[in-house]
Amino acid sequence: MTQVLPIAIDAMGGDSAPQEPVRGALLALRRGRSVCLVGDEAFVHPLLDRAPDIPIVHAPQTVSMDDAATAPLRGKSQSSIRLALEEIQAGRAAAVVTAGHSGAAMASALHVLGRLPGVARPALVTVVPRGDGGETVLLDLGVNVDCKVEHLVQFALMGDAYSRVVLGVERPRVGLLSNAEERNKGNAQVRSALEALDALDLDFIGPVEPDAALLGAADVLVCDGFVGNVMLKTVEATAKVVTALLRRELTAWHPGSLLGLWLLSKPFRRFRQRTAASNYGGALLLGVDGVVVVCHGGSDATAIAAAVEVARCCVEQGVVGRVASVIEGNVNPGSSIDNGLAPER
Amino acid sequence: MTQVLPIAIDAMGGDSAPQEPVRGALLALRRGRSVCLVGDEAFVHPLLDRAPDIPIVHAPQTVSMDDAATAPLRGKSQSSIRLALEEIQAGRAAAVVTAGHSGAAMASALHVLGRLPGVARPALVTVVPRGDGGETVLLDLGVNVDCKVEHLVQFALMGDAYSRVVLGVERPRVGLLSNAEERNKGNAQVRSALEALDALDLDFIGPVEPDAALLGAADVLVCDGFVGNVMLKTVEATAKVVTALLRRELTAWHPGSLLGLWLLSKPFRRFRQRTAASNYGGALLLGVDGVVVVCHGGSDATAIAAAVEVARCCVEQGVVGRVASVIEGNVNPGSSIDNGLAPER
Repeated sequence: MTQVLPIAIDAMGGDSAPQEPVRGALLALRRGRSVCLVGDEAFVHPLLDRAPDIPIVHAPQTVSMDDAATAPLRGKSQSSIRLALEEIQAGRAAAVVTAGHSGAAMASALHVLGRLPGVARPALVTVVPRGDGGETVLLDLGVNVDCKVEHLVQFALMGDAYSRVVLGVERPRVGLLSNAEERNKGNAQVRSALEALDALDLDFIGPVEPDAALLGAADVLVCDGFVGNVMLKTVEATAKVVTALLRRELTAWHPGSLLGLWLLSKPFRRFRQRTAASNYGGALLLGVDGVVVVCHGGSDATAIAAAVEVARCCVEQGVVGRVASVIEGNVNPGSSIDNGLAPER
Repeated sequence: MTQVLPIAIDAMGGDSAPQEPVRGALLALRRGRSVCLVGDEAFVHPLLDRAPDIPIVHAPQTVSMDDAATAPLRGKSQSSIRLALEEIQAGRAAAVVTAGHSGAAMASALHVLGRLPGVARPALVTVVPRGDGGETVLLDLGVNVDCKVEHLVQFALMGDAYSRVVLGVERPRVGLLSNAEERNKGNAQVRSALEALDALDLDFIGPVEPDAALLGAADVLVCDGFVGNVMLKTVEATAKVVTALLRRELTAWHPGSLLGLWLLSKPFRRFRQRTAASNYGGALLLGVDGVVVVCHGGSDATAIAAAVEVARCCVEQGVVGRVASVIEGNVNPGSSIDNGLAPER
């Protein structure tokens, strides 16, 4: 019997830490997952009375949202996010899940785990459901704002690899998020990136509007992290708003709709499970040499537990290693500087 | 009996012109609205056989999506968008509706109608439904990409005025769209605009995430046109995707859900009417001295007819004049340069 390494949960990260991360760990445990918690024992231990068998890795420091992204590299080397990542490095954890400061998670992951070969700038990646029943890979989701052309090139390569490996798309259509499909529109960033993206050995389909992408036009949607973060949060919030408005319409109707609602309660529940933000389970930090899943700061226990599932899938499917080989195959070493793939200083 | 001026519809603007704009005009006519069509008579007239009483203003030229925004000011002075705006200027039309090139619409509107006093840069504005039952004013939606601080300041002033005048909000909470609520996050554009927005005499609440705004945190959401366009199209597409996924769940269930669906068909229809993009009816070009409503290029007849309703409301409520006086009251002439309100060169 092979030993399954636990997934390390950053107990101190997020708006409702340590309560929600700890509850998320308990939920994952009930689902049979192996987890450990990294955080301040004095806070975490009392929350664990019903499940004393979840190991705690003591971390005396916490990164707050007001800290600089580099805090875990400087004054806060004993912070929960950094020590969680060191559990991977030491071979004691398979992956990390955090709802804390995403910039700090990236900086620490680069420092502790290092980059994949050929990757200068990691990105947060997730999938969003499409109208045609498929899913679109979206990156970056917020760890890189004010991106340069070479960053967008990297995201295209990583998104292509992720789509092939995780979703099994044979030749993903890679689009650049824009406000118009015409190449002479878009903002300065979009217009300046088109040429470099055209030059890549992948199916780059040019600028894509978000609505076209969500209705099926692109398998991978590349964007600046600021815009990607706005887009992802808008998708999640709109799904909530639409469900709330629909429920209001339905219950405001006549008595027949109460019977209708009752008959539809099961499919409604399945639908909510498919679209609720808390079931999406955070975004993979793609490009570092390890599995790191970053959740929204407002994540509740359900979201944390869902992120543990995302991390587990990535570990079991060997996503990081497989993405690394697709990227290596895609990068022509002779033209690495043209492709913006020169390692960062 | 006072004569009602018609609303001029740009018959040649949009992906499905002239068919959809003409069908939209016929739909508006059936609703009792006074409209006229501006476009190439040779194409428009044959489409009108069942309603010969819609006047056509002949425009021999058409602005295509590949044209520069300034085309109607140079070689295409006889284009449908420019001649439609000249109908307002000549006192023969109350407003213009177009689904054509939005940059060309803005450039022509500035040239033909001029700016409101105190406004350097017009913006496209609309409202999106919120989870709390309210509505958030969103601007700019795409005519200004790569915005400078002074543009965002203008949008804040105009959005505040629009919220007061159109939605009756007494003291609108104005937020700046960002990927995080912390002031030290956001991209360079957001961080650099905060100080100027703080200095305005309105209820500026700082950076606001899109999900927080859609769930009720802001009455006005200010953003760069690139990001605003992405956000609006994401809202519209997500509403479609969610509805499609929900319908799939519902019909895939057992026979009881068919009865449930039948019982719920009426509230479902009302809900679709509330959220479908084509019912939103385009965005007002706020800041020019006249009512100009710009629709998505993919607008169908329903969307064009809805835009006619938006234009009609703006005309009847005197939105432009009332917004102008709110802006004038808000702008301290002595500090106009500090506020970024010096007229553009």
